[in-house]
Amino acid sequence: MKIQHPVYYGDYLQLPKILNAQATESAKYGSAAHDETLFIIIHQTYELWFKQILHELDSVREIMQKPFVPSTDLSVINARIERVTTIQQILIDQIQVMETMTTLDFMEFRDFLVPASGFQSLQFRLVEATLGIKAHHRMEVEKQFFTSRLNSDDRKKLEETENKISIFELLEAWLERMPFSHFEDFDFWGEYSEAVDKMLKQDRDIISKNPGLDEKMKSMELKNLDLTQETFNTLLDSNRYEEWKGQGKVRLSQKAMLSAVFIYLYRDYPALQMPFRILNSLVEVDEKFTTWRYRHAIMVQRILGTKIGTGGSSGHEYLKSTTERNRAFIDFFNLATFLIPKNMTPKLPDVLKDQLDIVYDSLRS
Amino acid sequence: MKIQHPVYYGDYLQLPKILNAQATESAKYGSAAHDETLFIIIHQTYELWFKQILHELDSVREIMQKPFVPSTDLSVINARIERVTTIQQILIDQIQVMETMTTLDFMEFRDFLVPASGFQSLQFRLVEATLGIKAHHRMEVEKQFFTSRLNSDDRKKLEETENKISIFELLEAWLERMPFSHFEDFDFWGEYSEAVDKMLKQDRDIISKNPGLDEKMKSMELKNLDLTQETFNTLLDSNRYEEWKGQGKVRLSQKAMLSAVFIYLYRDYPALQMPFRILNSLVEVDEKFTTWRYRHAIMVQRILGTKIGTGGSSGHEYLKSTTERNRAFIDFFNLATFLIPKNMTPKLPDVLKDQLDIVYDSLRS
Amino acid sequence: MKIQHPVYYGDYLQLPKILNAQATESAKYGSAAHDETLFIIIHQTYELWFKQILHELDSVREIMQKPFVPSTDLSVINARIERVTTIQQILIDQIQVMETMTTLDFMEFRDFLVPASGFQSLQFRLVEATLGIKAHHRMEVEKQFFTSRLNSDDRKKLEETENKISIFELLEAWLERMPFSHFEDFDFWGEYSEAVDKMLKQDRDIISKNPGLDEKMKSMELKNLDLTQETFNTLLDSNRYEEWKGQGKVRLSQKAMLSAVFIYLYRDYPALQMPFRILNSLVEVDEKFTTWRYRHAIMVQRILGTKIGTGGSSGHEYLKSTTERNRAFIDFFNLATFLIPKNMTPKLPDVLKDQLDIVYDSLRS
Amino acid sequence: MKIQHPVYYGDYLQLPKILNAQATESAKYGSAAHDETLFIIIHQTYELWFKQILHELDSVREIMQKPFVPSTDLSVINARIERVTTIQQILIDQIQVMETMTTLDFMEFRDFLVPASGFQSLQFRLVEATLGIKAHHRMEVEKQFFTSRLNSDDRKKLEETENKISIFELLEAWLERMPFSHFEDFDFWGEYSEAVDKMLKQDRDIISKNPGLDEKMKSMELKNLDLTQETFNTLLDSNRYEEWKGQGKVRLSQKAMLSAVFIYLYRDYPALQMPFRILNSLVEVDEKFTTWRYRHAIMVQRILGTKIGTGGSSGHEYLKSTTERNRAFIDFFNLATFLIPKNMTPKLPDVLKDQLDIVYDSLRS
Repeated sequence: MKIQHPVYYGDYLQLPKILNAQATESAKYGSAAHDETLFIIIHQTYELWFKQILHELDSVREIMQKPFVPSTDLSVINARIERVTTIQQILIDQIQVMETMTTLDFMEFRDFLVPASGFQSLQFRLVEATLGIKAHHRMEVEKQFFTSRLNSDDRKKLEETENKISIFELLEAWLERMPFSHFEDFDFWGEYSEAVDKMLKQDRDIISKNPGLDEKMKSMELKNLDLTQETFNTLLDSNRYEEWKGQGKVRLSQKAMLSAVFIYLYRDYPALQMPFRILNSLVEVDEKFTTWRYRHAIMVQRILGTKIGTGGSSGHEYLKSTTERNRAFIDFFNLATFLIPKNMTPKLPDVLKDQLDIVYDSLRS
Repeated sequence: MKIQHPVYYGDYLQLPKILNAQATESAKYGSAAHDETLFIIIHQTYELWFKQILHELDSVREIMQKPFVPSTDLSVINARIERVTTIQQILIDQIQVMETMTTLDFMEFRDFLVPASGFQSLQFRLVEATLGIKAHHRMEVEKQFFTSRLNSDDRKKLEETENKISIFELLEAWLERMPFSHFEDFDFWGEYSEAVDKMLKQDRDIISKNPGLDEKMKSMELKNLDLTQETFNTLLDSNRYEEWKGQGKVRLSQKAMLSAVFIYLYRDYPALQMPFRILNSLVEVDEKFTTWRYRHAIMVQRILGTKIGTGGSSGHEYLKSTTERNRAFIDFFNLATFLIPKNMTPKLPDVLKDQLDIVYDSLRS
Repeated sequence: MKIQHPVYYGDYLQLPKILNAQATESAKYGSAAHDETLFIIIHQTYELWFKQILHELDSVREIMQKPFVPSTDLSVINARIERVTTIQQILIDQIQVMETMTTLDFMEFRDFLVPASGFQSLQFRLVEATLGIKAHHRMEVEKQFFTSRLNSDDRKKLEETENKISIFELLEAWLERMPFSHFEDFDFWGEYSEAVDKMLKQDRDIISKNPGLDEKMKSMELKNLDLTQETFNTLLDSNRYEEWKGQGKVRLSQKAMLSAVFIYLYRDYPALQMPFRILNSLVEVDEKFTTWRYRHAIMVQRILGTKIGTGGSSGHEYLKSTTERNRAFIDFFNLATFLIPKNMTPKLPDVLKDQLDIVYDSLRS
Repeated sequence: MKIQHPVYYGDYLQLPKILNAQATESAKYGSAAHDETLFIIIHQTYELWFKQILHELDSVREIMQKPFVPSTDLSVINARIERVTTIQQILIDQIQVMETMTTLDFMEFRDFLVPASGFQSLQFRLVEATLGIKAHHRMEVEKQFFTSRLNSDDRKKLEETENKISIFELLEAWLERMPFSHFEDFDFWGEYSEAVDKMLKQDRDIISKNPGLDEKMKSMELKNLDLTQETFNTLLDSNRYEEWKGQGKVRLSQKAMLSAVFIYLYRDYPALQMPFRILNSLVEVDEKFTTWRYRHAIMVQRILGTKIGTGGSSGHEYLKSTTERNRAFIDFFNLATFLIPKNMTPKLPDVLKDQLDIVYDSLRS
């Protein structure tokens, strides 16, 4: 290797471009508002981070598109998703910087910005689409917004990304390829089902004999148990599961879901540690965006009050309504539903255990 | 002063008591669960912090009960409320510690705890009541819970605190005593009203001429503006304001609300800086509890899934429903609604300005 | 006002410029390193934030250059400094994003960057200089670095800023203009001096009679008290204070220091609340940069180990050595040294109290 | 299972004990200081968290004492250490609560506390000892302090813990048992050594041809490279390594160190992912305590100034001096020193790769 040219910090980072990209609208109207610079810069940092998040997610997608994902790639995948969550924490924390801008400060320039809106961030939409949010998952109001307010270039780029395979789809396929939904000589799901019955019977006992509950609460609790029973039954019955899926109650296929349950239950085996971490990191990505949307909605309400914007966004209510939406990995978030206590979990046959394990002993000999 | 006895760290903090108060239920049943200790200790730290928050709020209440609150006490009040918000941030951050406990870990001991529930924390309810949440503000489900699940001692203590005057009530009275809702020789609210009209007319223009909005959106936006106009009209009309209050849309009296609006508009005057900070700190207290409830609800769902608890709390849904409830100071949070741009704010007469100002010049002579 | 043109989000933020400014060196050498993009983007966000910090500090400097700073400007000054500290917290938190890059990841492209170095960030140096770090305050190694490694343009810009008046200098002048270092008919500093004597006598008693201390520790403690006494004496003696200043033990003039002590002691008066907050916010600015330098040094050591860089920066040791340097407002940080208990603080004459107070009563009549 | 008794929240947490353990000294002297309650409560929460940390570390020690640590236990070990770091973040964040107490507030009660000191926290010392800090690792001033200021009970408990095997020792033994320091048919360390030579030669080239470095800097850099070479040589030469160890430059045995380097280099293999995580989590434990000590020292200086305490602790200087001390796992922190770029890392023979890998393929068949 030969270094061909010395690198200078400011040139390397292209600072002349970066640091001369803050032209305030208020100045153009002759009344420069001090805080508009903050408004621009904070959004620019958001967009830089979105670019980084896309860089990570695109690389994850690329790795997962291999027909066979090597085990040594799994920790790379996980590290990159975890990096995304670390960046998301910064996105959330940055809201505190925005909150240093008061209503009065904002009023000095907001009228100059119409009809621009943060909803027009293409990159944020690309992130959602790459994770797994397709056009048909979106709320009506979002779809309309894209049609009326994104320019055609941006709309086209969004559609292109929506048409690519998403990380959700790749993950589902990867889980389906795993051998955990059915074993040759071992009726795992039968044993699991028995364990569930035992657990629910025990719960039923506890409720019935609970001296702290009156009759009305007992009957309510027992009804709830029936619902829980139903949920487990549905997991294990492919027809009813399909129905569920049709109703939008789950997104994952049954096969993938069963693999995920298996991974959650036996996560301590070396073979499953990294798959477990990956599922968890993706849940974390969803959760962090949820928190970000929530904090963002609160911030907007605090700055704007219940007043209506001039640019067409009676934003606060919309913002709140999307807080919990657009979660590609909600099924993993809800997976606790299907777990059973460790001491009831089916014992694995030795041959399977050996496959999941690293026998450090053999390393030693 | 004479120091009568040397103090030893462990004795001073009564550590033998504190550190021997962790008896796990699981151990009593012969199967000690490692994570139950965490469960106990985290809740004990929460209760210690609640005690500290009550200590601060009680002292604030005491100061505000003085018939005349000296100006030098205002920064004491504010410092103590800000301390509460600093503690609340710890309460929120601690949820991350709880999240290190997985569903499987929790399943090892949860059945032993029935029907105990975090909703039984008396101190948390005392905090809410001290801030200003009375029995009649609560959701039906909470009231029922208190009747059926709090023991009589705790219920009595809660009622006692509910019967005391709250910080909300003291604050309202303090704002009402301020001279800003009506001035002798200066029609402030008339000028404010004119400024509002001017501002709204301008907004109307911007919307009408906005080339980025189609006809449908324009008409929607103009309708929104009519609503905003209504809101301002209501603020300034005592009859309609009373109606609003009757409908639960605001909690503050009109007189107090006008003082608050005045303080927000002229916060930069030395006389109003600390009152402004106090209102803001109280909004922050509300917001932090909202965030805490939200994060807590998410954490519970992640650990329990959509499964129903055995102790009578199908907690997750209830938790979510209370996230935004029980906010004593929501009116201040929404105050941005009534602000107008700085360059439209009525000019104050000199005599009033002098009263609000500290003339550092005079200090100098 | 007439809106002349609709604004589009991506154009407003100049995203084509911002998002096309990440050209990795590794790609130029034919072996694109995944993590170099992160390295570029994180530094670009740092530079954007530095621009924002400079925007705030420059405006503070401008306000403070007025011959008479109006009291209503003080809260503007303070809000902008507090915003700087909020941004600094993001700078600190972002280190966690950098830490997701491992040594092995970094090794894939570090050689391509020589001899670029974060020390070449001009804007960071401008921030330091604007706060009050002049060339003569810097360590030898820094000065050399600027000569040998900054290009002439950057060096010139740094010198220009160093030649402007700094916030430290403006603050010192503002404190000196305050009337607290000498009062006409009230020997404040005499009474303060008596209070100090009383306090130290009391401390001496406590030590002497402390049954928990053996003779050796007692004598050590009493010696320490003598030193404390010296410190107070020096504060009040202009000749000895000058000596101190000559030795670099303090940066503030005696007059400014006395004003600052007075403000700290009587901070609860409305007239002094905002000045107190400003001094505190500036200490916070110093502290946050200290924390940032510290965390940064740790991160570098973790990624590079004790290995030496190829680009000329055996950075880790240097980084550590500067952690606590370059603090313009260290004197305020150390101000606790000169405080005395509230119950010993001299009572102010009524006329002075009235000047410092807002008589809310008069507002009411 | 039968639930024998209903559990009540307040009884379960033993709140009557916990919430009645705050007796302020100032009240005993007839002048209750508002902030002393905070002082007590924050220290009590610290002690509760220390108890939890000990609970986790003791369980880790117990698992690691098994003659053979099963692979499924590794993720348990890691989860518990990661929980410790999550708790430590709370310990650090809590300093912000303490910082809401001003110097003047603290002066109201500090004299009543002599000679109590936070250094007397037995549990904190037990944590250090459990991690691996033995009496002979401590600074002289600490040892003296334990002799003169801990009561005999506490001193005895500390000695008992110091005499037990520490997590550091167990970890070292575990690393030594691993087969990575020597392979039968594969000269790994020879190949590693060649890679190092190649890397250093390349660095030497880059420096020599670096147009951005003047002659003086070049010669300095080349000298640094010689030192780096020395460091690598020492790692691989058991005699020189022993010397190093004798000088206290490393704590780990050479055998354990080589295993650790191997794990860092090949961390992506399933067999090494969890070992790698464990080493990293332990470094994180060290770092978080370092950060905590640092933030604590700053906080003390801010509250006390350079003034000397009455209870025998001229604490600030001592605090600063210990910031970077007492790190049991410093060798892992410095491990980056021994890493080499991925593309130079020796290729592993297939048989070894298979042992380190999980062949997901076999799972599938």
